[in-house]
Amino acid sequence: MVEGRHVRDVGEFGLIELLVASLPEEVRAATDLQLGIGDDAAVWQPSPGEQVVVTTDSLIEDVHFRREWTDWESLGHKCLAVNVSDLAAMGAIPKLALVSLGLDGSELLGDLQAFYRGMGALARGHGMVIAGGDIVRSPRGLIVHVTALGETRGRRVLTRSGAKPGDLIGVTGTLGASAAGLRLLGLDAEDPRRRAATSAQLVESHLRPEPRVGLGAALLENGATSAMDLSDGLLGDLPKITAASGVSARVDEGSIPVAAAVRALFSDEWVDLALRGGEDYELLFTAPVGSWDAIDIEARKTGGTVTTIGEIIAAAPELQSIELVGRDGARRAVSLGAFDHFGEG
Amino acid sequence: MVEGRHVRDVGEFGLIELLVASLPEEVRAATDLQLGIGDDAAVWQPSPGEQVVVTTDSLIEDVHFRREWTDWESLGHKCLAVNVSDLAAMGAIPKLALVSLGLDGSELLGDLQAFYRGMGALARGHGMVIAGGDIVRSPRGLIVHVTALGETRGRRVLTRSGAKPGDLIGVTGTLGASAAGLRLLGLDAEDPRRRAATSAQLVESHLRPEPRVGLGAALLENGATSAMDLSDGLLGDLPKITAASGVSARVDEGSIPVAAAVRALFSDEWVDLALRGGEDYELLFTAPVGSWDAIDIEARKTGGTVTTIGEIIAAAPELQSIELVGRDGARRAVSLGAFDHFGEG
Repeated sequence: MVEGRHVRDVGEFGLIELLVASLPEEVRAATDLQLGIGDDAAVWQPSPGEQVVVTTDSLIEDVHFRREWTDWESLGHKCLAVNVSDLAAMGAIPKLALVSLGLDGSELLGDLQAFYRGMGALARGHGMVIAGGDIVRSPRGLIVHVTALGETRGRRVLTRSGAKPGDLIGVTGTLGASAAGLRLLGLDAEDPRRRAATSAQLVESHLRPEPRVGLGAALLENGATSAMDLSDGLLGDLPKITAASGVSARVDEGSIPVAAAVRALFSDEWVDLALRGGEDYELLFTAPVGSWDAIDIEARKTGGTVTTIGEIIAAAPELQSIELVGRDGARRAVSLGAFDHFGEG
Repeated sequence: MVEGRHVRDVGEFGLIELLVASLPEEVRAATDLQLGIGDDAAVWQPSPGEQVVVTTDSLIEDVHFRREWTDWESLGHKCLAVNVSDLAAMGAIPKLALVSLGLDGSELLGDLQAFYRGMGALARGHGMVIAGGDIVRSPRGLIVHVTALGETRGRRVLTRSGAKPGDLIGVTGTLGASAAGLRLLGLDAEDPRRRAATSAQLVESHLRPEPRVGLGAALLENGATSAMDLSDGLLGDLPKITAASGVSARVDEGSIPVAAAVRALFSDEWVDLALRGGEDYELLFTAPVGSWDAIDIEARKTGGTVTTIGEIIAAAPELQSIELVGRDGARRAVSLGAFDHFGEG
């Protein structure tokens, strides 16, 4: 029986057994996985000739998530999703993940099972396996660390450095919903009476982002020149593409796709949420004008959307800038510098 | 200038630049690394036909290391070494590593540069590249998380599940030195006058373990049937091989190789340190009698040693046990159960 029992009651090895059992069968084994959970390392056979794409993300309690604001299943989903999103941004095919947990022993087994169920469901949806990991003691808060591995499609990837002057700048989906959801969770905590004002859809965007794997493939295969996933906000992330590509950008504020719920609930702030809100986990990309229609058609086939929000312009070296064209037509330079995790603000 | 400045003074991106610059040139790029630090993911081309071997380990401040007991360069070395040791235990060739740091911003830049220098030197020694990672805010202590990737030698690996009745049980190097070193660091902290009694060599074994990559290759290529690296102590780890292989084991206590310094400084405890001390990062393996000479010869060629410490015996399913033959010839059953990171003791 698991009910009411804690990690310290079963120890590391009992816990691993329970967690593995919480994963769907097909998420524990696959024909290309030679060796999974339970040895010193996992062994995986990539498809012949393809390259390995690998990324890693840490999520720290009270920095990246709050236990009281999320359910464990959503947390499991999100910890894997933010990694798969990085693979999606490369146009790669997700294949396997290693999951490390830092626990203090007081966690309920049922909660960790829910965490693995959430992760397992997302993994299954993308044909991934959970191939191993590590469980360590963390006396000062929950730590989740995921490494995701994928492979290239035809030995090509989308990088941040391929944007060319004249390219259109596009985003998938809508921006600002995750930041709005986070704001709502905060308001909620301060004043539970505001619950009626919260939108479940926005909170869901924050707690359970959907990595855009199909859209990443559509971008790769239809001529996109660069891509990255949006985790630090549009104005935090776009400078990474312009810097890597040696170009400038002009963004048309009025073109940025923002969900109606965000506009309605944050009438004063929605532009800021869309420009600076983090954790959208949508894809930001560039593509030549001539590729746009093909990308748009393929995006729709995956059930997704792409929206043009500006264009790439030539820049003298070291003079890269981002210009924002307001809804009133006024142009202003954006102060650069991405979201800094160690910033005082 | 770096001197006296802290992480929060330069922010995430300034920090990444500084850390990358602390790595030797050849640890930042390699012909099989298509894309390294600075994009959403790293892209790597394994050798044609080979399988990918991947492992991951988290090191948490005050659980896995103490800042006051280690220098930063050794810490960088160790955080990579414990991962490379897992690859060594598979007989794999180390290729790349992703490094994630959780920092609170108060760290000195010079300390983190030393950390990267330590890691970079070990990486260079094994022909590895540091291909990426993640830097996050961790308000409650330093967190280091490393994922190491390697590839198979001729599509084969050493697992924990291949031990057969009649096989000899072997270990590389000596056991107990790391646990002895840890003990000395603790004594030192309690009573600095005991400094004279500490042995720099034992402390070094604890702070800077050398992953046995060459020995892992020698085992793989000369008929070893199973292997793992020793991190939880001989009596914690051997049961993982017997359980995975469905066998029992007999260990001859008097055969266990223990460094003279450990025997001299811990005259009452050295047997216990050798049997139960953790973090040796030596390899524990099994091999048929007929393979032993070849393994021994190849081990010497790498500058290492192997020692027979017992043998694998047949066991009825679910009746696996480990029997310890004492130096007086007395036989006793070992209470099983590995070191438990959540144990009360």
